[in-house]
Amino acid sequence: MRLSRYYLPLLKETPADAQIASHRLMLRAGMIRQEGAGIYAWLPLGFRVLKKIEQIVREEQNRAGAVEMLMPTIQSADLWRESGRYDAYGKEMLRITDRADRDMLYGPTNEEMITEIFRAGVRSYKDLPKMLYHIQWKFRDEIRPRFGVMRGREFLMKDTYSFDIDEASARASYNKMFVAYLRTFARMGLKSIPMRAETGPIGGDLSHEFIVLAETGESAVFCDRQLVDMDTPNKDIDFDGDLQPVIDQFTAHYAATDEMHDEAAFEKNVEENNRVSARGIEVGHIFFFGDKYSTPMNAVVAGPDAGDIPVQMGSYGVGVSRLLGAIIEAYHDESGCKWPTPVAPYHVGLVNLRAGDDSCDATCEKLYAELTSQGVEVLYDDTSARPGEKFARMDLIGLPYQVVIGPRGLENDEAEVKTRADGAKETMPVDTVAQHVGSAVLKALQYA
Amino acid sequence: MRLSRYYLPLLKETPADAQIASHRLMLRAGMIRQEGAGIYAWLPLGFRVLKKIEQIVREEQNRAGAVEMLMPTIQSADLWRESGRYDAYGKEMLRITDRADRDMLYGPTNEEMITEIFRAGVRSYKDLPKMLYHIQWKFRDEIRPRFGVMRGREFLMKDTYSFDIDEASARASYNKMFVAYLRTFARMGLKSIPMRAETGPIGGDLSHEFIVLAETGESAVFCDRQLVDMDTPNKDIDFDGDLQPVIDQFTAHYAATDEMHDEAAFEKNVEENNRVSARGIEVGHIFFFGDKYSTPMNAVVAGPDAGDIPVQMGSYGVGVSRLLGAIIEAYHDESGCKWPTPVAPYHVGLVNLRAGDDSCDATCEKLYAELTSQGVEVLYDDTSARPGEKFARMDLIGLPYQVVIGPRGLENDEAEVKTRADGAKETMPVDTVAQHVGSAVLKALQYA
Repeated sequence: MRLSRYYLPLLKETPADAQIASHRLMLRAGMIRQEGAGIYAWLPLGFRVLKKIEQIVREEQNRAGAVEMLMPTIQSADLWRESGRYDAYGKEMLRITDRADRDMLYGPTNEEMITEIFRAGVRSYKDLPKMLYHIQWKFRDEIRPRFGVMRGREFLMKDTYSFDIDEASARASYNKMFVAYLRTFARMGLKSIPMRAETGPIGGDLSHEFIVLAETGESAVFCDRQLVDMDTPNKDIDFDGDLQPVIDQFTAHYAATDEMHDEAAFEKNVEENNRVSARGIEVGHIFFFGDKYSTPMNAVVAGPDAGDIPVQMGSYGVGVSRLLGAIIEAYHDESGCKWPTPVAPYHVGLVNLRAGDDSCDATCEKLYAELTSQGVEVLYDDTSARPGEKFARMDLIGLPYQVVIGPRGLENDEAEVKTRADGAKETMPVDTVAQHVGSAVLKALQYA
Repeated sequence: MRLSRYYLPLLKETPADAQIASHRLMLRAGMIRQEGAGIYAWLPLGFRVLKKIEQIVREEQNRAGAVEMLMPTIQSADLWRESGRYDAYGKEMLRITDRADRDMLYGPTNEEMITEIFRAGVRSYKDLPKMLYHIQWKFRDEIRPRFGVMRGREFLMKDTYSFDIDEASARASYNKMFVAYLRTFARMGLKSIPMRAETGPIGGDLSHEFIVLAETGESAVFCDRQLVDMDTPNKDIDFDGDLQPVIDQFTAHYAATDEMHDEAAFEKNVEENNRVSARGIEVGHIFFFGDKYSTPMNAVVAGPDAGDIPVQMGSYGVGVSRLLGAIIEAYHDESGCKWPTPVAPYHVGLVNLRAGDDSCDATCEKLYAELTSQGVEVLYDDTSARPGEKFARMDLIGLPYQVVIGPRGLENDEAEVKTRADGAKETMPVDTVAQHVGSAVLKALQYA
């Protein structure tokens, strides 16, 4: 993409109401623009990151055996009256009346609708298990939206729903999502720690929040350092095999959010120098809730013996738009974002220090073509801005690699390559740049 | 995908209120489920088609130089008060009040919001032209939603907006979209005919509807047969070059919807045996509207001379979800859908006539792996349903190729391959199937 044709409106001033780094940087780097309280437009640069995060989430859901579909944003109130949640949900639900005076709502989540869809199409235990998911915009009318996309009102969420004949089978579905989530966040460069969460009236131990450690996290968290150092299951893991050993490994150590924290247990079970007491951002939540919706909504299947059985359900959420904030919180410095390559809006920023100079232009065009043909995504700064502005802009938007072409370097046929993550700069012959940078990018896109 | 793990709830009965083929078939084939008047959930099979259509639209927008972003579904009423459309829009606008009593709305279109975004980020004529687009759910509170996804209330639309310094430049942007639209629909197997449309108070000739001919179309259309036979510009066309000759070629012949039709001109300008009088479905609409929004909303740029100039704008819509209906109307028979390969939910239906039989299972697994490894998308019917049910199901969902494996054929190491488009059946050695079907699919995915 040529910057001259792109739409990248950077902010010079830091917006006063942006309290955390990710919010500030997303506004300053022209990734988002606020269109209302907790409502954002995704400008081209932010949109690209959103799409990449969404695609990683999708790939790992598919790998785990979940099937994608898409439910509408607007739901009927009657559906929520069936489950009893219409009145219970409170003011966070955006309630709407259409022109025919029907009570509607902008879906904050989809347990009711997926249960309705399931019950209409599945009749027998032989058709189970099923796992369905969608990635769709939700709306929650937060009283105090803040922290940019971290706590917005209109937000993109991936929600999966599992349907099983009994609790043992439901646990297998739960385990699939548990492993899928570890992998999903790891592929974005995030170390997520599953922490036992409130299960509500159902009880049991089948609810986990996935927490990313970050100084600006919304809640205090406590865990054993061994969890932070634990290896993520690799892509060859068999989702149809027994995943319980993996789950056991990740749940053997102490890990709790503020709400669930037990200081005595923490001190008893965790060696002193392994005690991590930090702040965290919730990026996923998985939850088994049995027949909470299937019984009131009559989502039953014919069992192996006579009689209908309400299905055992679970739901599994990932905050897709929120993840942009979480990744920036984990990867930034004073100058801007430092995107991990798999979620970077572009892989390479190509900086032409003297646009209009024949030699600089020709060299940049050649590099642009060579990199692009390898599948490397290049944002080419072909504008007439001054070098200082170009450097600051590239640091701010935080692409993993910067390739700088200027008249002085070209006298020796040399280019400068900067790695944004560590700031390292290397001068190299122009004709080795495409191979050098291309192979670094492609290597970073591989995953275990 | 193995059908045993998929979610494909077919309907045996044809729903009474579904008046047209696409609506009936989408419900019967388990592609959509109605969740409210004019509101549909996209079940896994329908979702896949929706995504493929969206991706073709996206690729052709990018090729034409438009930059993708994403605006939120919920908009502030104040923005629409600026343009004067808040009161003018009427009851089709879904108006919402949030918990803080702010007037909001579910966006039916985005001229106001994109103008607001543009004016905040662009200052100089040197930054023009710009073309921005998004693919987002819209809501129009139709009084009488009908024809399934063809006239729903919540629908997916691609809308592009162009910003230019003067009318000549705006015409160049318009021409890019004109050509992109011809290509977009052609890649889905649709012959679209650009027809001059009402331009409203601005006048001029810069508004075209793109119409697909179909018996069930909502409006009567009239055109010269030469338009139907005209070749679509191929992918090597230079969008930065002069596209006017292409536009001239496509606008030289008579073509008009009901509203614009002039019977005398039709008879005068079109030879009798070239007069096409048919019904059509609108799948796209492009529109130049000058400073209609930029002047009231103060979207100006510094001009080359002193003083600010309001930008010249255009908008360009494609009905993404509606296209599913249009494609089915064009490609179906009594038994079901007949998807063109580029938009088919899967390319191949692999039918195991005796699931559980060692030889049938092993052969199917091998074919499944061989086809998948070529990039061919396979829906594998591994269920225990009876042959008649399996054949009817495959015809209904309409994948381009069916590969049938049964114990009788396997005695001679033979499989049957059926082409859904023409119903042709061919018996061939099992070990030639992957190569034969794979190359047919890959060839159909190439485009000019």
